[in-house]
Amino acid sequence: MSIVTLTTDFGVADPFVGVMKGVLLGRAPTARVIALTHGIPPHDVLAGDGIPPHDVLAGALVLRHSVPYFPRGTIHLAVVDPGVGSERRALCVETAGALLVGPDNGLLSLAAPRGEIRRIMHLTEEHFFLSPRSATFHGRDLFAPVAAALAAGTPVEKLGSEVRDMQRLDLPPVVREAHALRGQVIYVDHFGNLTTNVSAADLAALAIHAPSIGVGSVRLRGVAPSYAAVPRGEPVAVVNSWGLLEIAVREGSARDQFGAGIGAAVVIEA
Amino acid sequence: MSIVTLTTDFGVADPFVGVMKGVLLGRAPTARVIALTHGIPPHDVLAGDGIPPHDVLAGALVLRHSVPYFPRGTIHLAVVDPGVGSERRALCVETAGALLVGPDNGLLSLAAPRGEIRRIMHLTEEHFFLSPRSATFHGRDLFAPVAAALAAGTPVEKLGSEVRDMQRLDLPPVVREAHALRGQVIYVDHFGNLTTNVSAADLAALAIHAPSIGVGSVRLRGVAPSYAAVPRGEPVAVVNSWGLLEIAVREGSARDQFGAGIGAAVVIEA
Amino acid sequence: MSIVTLTTDFGVADPFVGVMKGVLLGRAPTARVIALTHGIPPHDVLAGDGIPPHDVLAGALVLRHSVPYFPRGTIHLAVVDPGVGSERRALCVETAGALLVGPDNGLLSLAAPRGEIRRIMHLTEEHFFLSPRSATFHGRDLFAPVAAALAAGTPVEKLGSEVRDMQRLDLPPVVREAHALRGQVIYVDHFGNLTTNVSAADLAALAIHAPSIGVGSVRLRGVAPSYAAVPRGEPVAVVNSWGLLEIAVREGSARDQFGAGIGAAVVIEA
Repeated sequence: MSIVTLTTDFGVADPFVGVMKGVLLGRAPTARVIALTHGIPPHDVLAGDGIPPHDVLAGALVLRHSVPYFPRGTIHLAVVDPGVGSERRALCVETAGALLVGPDNGLLSLAAPRGEIRRIMHLTEEHFFLSPRSATFHGRDLFAPVAAALAAGTPVEKLGSEVRDMQRLDLPPVVREAHALRGQVIYVDHFGNLTTNVSAADLAALAIHAPSIGVGSVRLRGVAPSYAAVPRGEPVAVVNSWGLLEIAVREGSARDQFGAGIGAAVVIEA
Repeated sequence: MSIVTLTTDFGVADPFVGVMKGVLLGRAPTARVIALTHGIPPHDVLAGDGIPPHDVLAGALVLRHSVPYFPRGTIHLAVVDPGVGSERRALCVETAGALLVGPDNGLLSLAAPRGEIRRIMHLTEEHFFLSPRSATFHGRDLFAPVAAALAAGTPVEKLGSEVRDMQRLDLPPVVREAHALRGQVIYVDHFGNLTTNVSAADLAALAIHAPSIGVGSVRLRGVAPSYAAVPRGEPVAVVNSWGLLEIAVREGSARDQFGAGIGAAVVIEA
Repeated sequence: MSIVTLTTDFGVADPFVGVMKGVLLGRAPTARVIALTHGIPPHDVLAGDGIPPHDVLAGALVLRHSVPYFPRGTIHLAVVDPGVGSERRALCVETAGALLVGPDNGLLSLAAPRGEIRRIMHLTEEHFFLSPRSATFHGRDLFAPVAAALAAGTPVEKLGSEVRDMQRLDLPPVVREAHALRGQVIYVDHFGNLTTNVSAADLAALAIHAPSIGVGSVRLRGVAPSYAAVPRGEPVAVVNSWGLLEIAVREGSARDQFGAGIGAAVVIEA
């Protein structure tokens, strides 16, 4: 009984996701289909300051931080695919723990660090695809049938031809100075919490007790053990469930209260 | 192991859909339940220009273009039901490929063309319903139990009495002139893409190379093979995954950029 | 084959719910996982007029009115948990019909009336939890693993130590006068319908034929058998699918039309 997860920017107002599930269950009747999210923002703008397009980045982060919580061998199907119908390749990436299926635009790369990749297949075996195939909905016509084939037991190597590399998406770097870290906000969740690219390991290496943490015009002191360490409505920095520094407001929205979003600079210093 | 799909205007903020699933799984424990969408707009206005209420039309289009992607015998339960509690009938429509369950308001009709209907049952066998039955939530009290009965193997003919016809919803017609087609926008998706009632067959019959396509004040030249045929932010016409002419903006929203919505006129000419 | 329902304020834009499902299916592969809702409003304000925080109240109402529609023994996992990381306890409450898992903040209490509770367990057996455990996401690290253990057959008494009581959330009272009822709006749904705390039994006990029903500046006459009893766009009072008095607008939004929300006073009199 295979598990197939879905990560898309399709939203849930249209039947696009449901139709993909129809294709999946038609070809792999016992598969369990689980949404990671269909709320990746569609058509997000290109960032000007060295970070990748927000939509593909968000999808890649979702995969990176979700895949470890699924059983080994889970099939993760991701379609954030502004290049649908273009020459961009369709891929299946096999890692030690998972099979990742999606377009070759960086979306799969954060969940597949270079050292953990076993095989990258270019999905060229068109007999797995639906026919006719539309030019606008490869989630239905190409990716779902391939994921269904995997779920039904088709070996990865039957899906196409092996290739050596794929598009990679690099997180914006954390600048590590002697007595400071300079990072940025890389993800904003439903609660308005601001996830940064600064990891718990970065904070440990900085070795400053109760550092000053600045985002925009807001300045916090120290990393708290939980949101509950501060009164309601007050800002707080925590290490969140992705292992990353997060700026939040207890029972409030840091996004709204600080007017900060993806790309906002974060400085940690003494 | 039956598949039951759900199409409603219930949204996902309330437990209405979850409760329907509880009723379904209580009576058909092995059924697979799949959302087509719960995002049909509630209470949409009546259109003044000959097209049906947007909400029932949207639901009917969702069913029409989704049912073919599900295995034969799938049960499609649809509840866009402004007339709940009135005298409108509850139906089960059997076609060659599917069982459609829902109110008799046109919602089921686009997925059940006249020539493909095997049987229309008026759902009068109240012993299948929950008791007591509310006047506001037949999705839970009437339609879900009937779909569960079907999923558990109850023959269609046990559900009530056969009737000869049902309410039909007609798509607004495409006006086919010698050298022009006049259609309209009938569906707007999450990305802001504008789906029209003009089919690929209509375009082929028109036989104009690279026709002018006008919607509102925007004029496009030709139908492109995919979104990727134009630069980012530019308008583009494609035949979409429903086989219909779609006006889009590459990596943008045609709805927002053109201010066009359901009912907007579309003209295709030399 | 256990059923696990989920009720959260996590929304569906982030992968939080998907990751919980990954943990559930990893440990209880045959469990059926059903969302009641992930749309409980996050971080809702404290009400000033004697009603509990809207978010926890909404979650508690969702559970109260959904649990009866699921098979006996269903596991209902609820995470509306502003106190995550604080000293608030994590509980499993066993009732005659269900197992409720969630934080001890009142969320579980409306679905577990005092007389129906068999056992309340404080979830102290940490070997069921994920390790390491984050301070921000007990849904993933604590509650989902415990629900999975239950779904996989672990007896309730293995989960921790039995305790005698839990936080309870009391609905705002209905003031029952000789010839009048004074209640309030306690839930507003996706359609903008206003659910009050006045029950069908309250109305029956009042025994006034076609009473005057006032909410804000709006005054209705009598409780109608269904929405369809009034013309489109007109206000209407019904007993809804929760068995409670509801103020609605036929095919419209009472919330928008009357500007009324949670806490709005409702008066029923001759």
